[in-house]
Amino acid sequence: MRRFSHSPPDVTAPFADRLAELVAARRSQIVLGLDPDPARLWPDAVAQAPSDGSAAHRAAGAVRAHCAALIDAAGEACVAVKPQLACFERLGAEGWGALVSTVLYARERGLLVIADGKRGDISVSAAAYTQALVGRTPTPFGEVAGLGVDAFTANPLLGIDSLEPIVAGARAAHAGVFVLVRTSNPGAADVEDLVLAEGGGTVWEHLAAIVARLGAPPSPVSGLSDICAVVGATAPEHVTRMRELMPHTPFLLPGIGAQGGRVEDLSPAFAPGRAGGLVSASRSIASAHESSGAPPADAARAEAERLREAAWSLQ
Amino acid sequence: MRRFSHSPPDVTAPFADRLAELVAARRSQIVLGLDPDPARLWPDAVAQAPSDGSAAHRAAGAVRAHCAALIDAAGEACVAVKPQLACFERLGAEGWGALVSTVLYARERGLLVIADGKRGDISVSAAAYTQALVGRTPTPFGEVAGLGVDAFTANPLLGIDSLEPIVAGARAAHAGVFVLVRTSNPGAADVEDLVLAEGGGTVWEHLAAIVARLGAPPSPVSGLSDICAVVGATAPEHVTRMRELMPHTPFLLPGIGAQGGRVEDLSPAFAPGRAGGLVSASRSIASAHESSGAPPADAARAEAERLREAAWSLQ
Repeated sequence: MRRFSHSPPDVTAPFADRLAELVAARRSQIVLGLDPDPARLWPDAVAQAPSDGSAAHRAAGAVRAHCAALIDAAGEACVAVKPQLACFERLGAEGWGALVSTVLYARERGLLVIADGKRGDISVSAAAYTQALVGRTPTPFGEVAGLGVDAFTANPLLGIDSLEPIVAGARAAHAGVFVLVRTSNPGAADVEDLVLAEGGGTVWEHLAAIVARLGAPPSPVSGLSDICAVVGATAPEHVTRMRELMPHTPFLLPGIGAQGGRVEDLSPAFAPGRAGGLVSASRSIASAHESSGAPPADAARAEAERLREAAWSLQ
Repeated sequence: MRRFSHSPPDVTAPFADRLAELVAARRSQIVLGLDPDPARLWPDAVAQAPSDGSAAHRAAGAVRAHCAALIDAAGEACVAVKPQLACFERLGAEGWGALVSTVLYARERGLLVIADGKRGDISVSAAAYTQALVGRTPTPFGEVAGLGVDAFTANPLLGIDSLEPIVAGARAAHAGVFVLVRTSNPGAADVEDLVLAEGGGTVWEHLAAIVARLGAPPSPVSGLSDICAVVGATAPEHVTRMRELMPHTPFLLPGIGAQGGRVEDLSPAFAPGRAGGLVSASRSIASAHESSGAPPADAARAEAERLREAAWSLQ
């Protein structure tokens, strides 16, 4: 069994440095996606749900148990978890409570948490998202702490002035931001891949330049930026170009497994060091038992460890 | 006093038809933005907060009271409310509870509710947002109802296949989707205004074409589409072009008042009928007392009515 930490990360250091340190300590670049579908939870988690209360209350309890079991099984092979916020929001206030519990559970086990909500808005609304995810909100009754994650995903369509309050709020909390640059779905071709009249680059190359600029300068400790990028692993031919445009930017690479990407295609991502490329996987881990026939926790643990080794061996 | 309805809208009709009917019945195209900042609530609302419990619990109570008072004051001059989700999310599960209460309160007063979260994600995650906002989520303990709003805002950066599950989920619930096309902030120039190599149009014109296609055909009853567009009112020179590209699309026009837009500049929006142009205002209504010196509710009522008359007189 590999060495790994059960203590929460040091949140007084910049996100990029915490990330690099934890990748090295845990020997993992794997981000465990938490996309709980209440209709497809592990059976043991459903059995642990409260026996009474509203459907939302019981389902939120089962979601909480499912995520905890998934973290227990696969977390050791990972450096971070990535809860997908809609999966919790669909259970309303109860779901948000399950999200809070899941964030705490992961952090207590030494994992970073990347909230995946792909938020984007302007001025005070952008700042409000930052308060909700990594900050604090002043009220007449005292400050209210946000979700307290280490990083979160953001959508750049609304431009630089929509990202600036997010970057400022994240930095104040020593948190990271993963900006969407080129996503892993076929529809990325519809907007992100459009070619621009000026310079002949694509929309995603333009977004990459914005991300690089917002993230400069990189930390002198890790050599990495705290403004990171989401780069779909289903288009590996783009990863080299991404790295040229964003030499110091940590990449979050979704699309492995269920979406068809292969970890072996990603080596250019790791040029600035192993923490430069984080490999995100959700269904391929949580649903590994459906193809392997093993118990869910065993199958998840094996698949996460297989991905960890595959990524780690690339550099 | 104008005639207005206190009964919830008929949710068996398509969103576009409900919108058109309610605009005519209430003689209003005004959308009341609900962006509650716990540090800037109306004093009477703060006084109505619970006297004990956590800061989040007390602040959520004050937010609920503030939104209710704002709806009581300004709602009569409006056709819909638009809660900005981050403003509630920053109070965690308590904030989500206040959001649910606020949605119910507005609907009981006959107002449509447009949830402003600017969501966007792929495949099952996009579907999960739809479940959270307008749908239902199957669980082993029974179905869990989502927020139950009439429409919501969505971000199209991830392309058509990210919008399709949202459109499908919204239509199944007779709900509308307001897709971001060209926002009201200066930063809209950074990405949305980029000129494309093919055809010479801009990113936002390309997005407009996608919205028009997803929204076709319009309802034979109202002549409007259920896939709508967010079009910043700070760039009125674009509204004419928007209308050419999206002849049947209802426009949500933020940026009036605090952001500098003028309702008088928007008349091209109303070409397909009054419900074709919804004028959104938040701070200019909720904070009207700060410049007028009148009590907050009186100032909000007067400003909402002023905007209503200004928009209504344009056609």
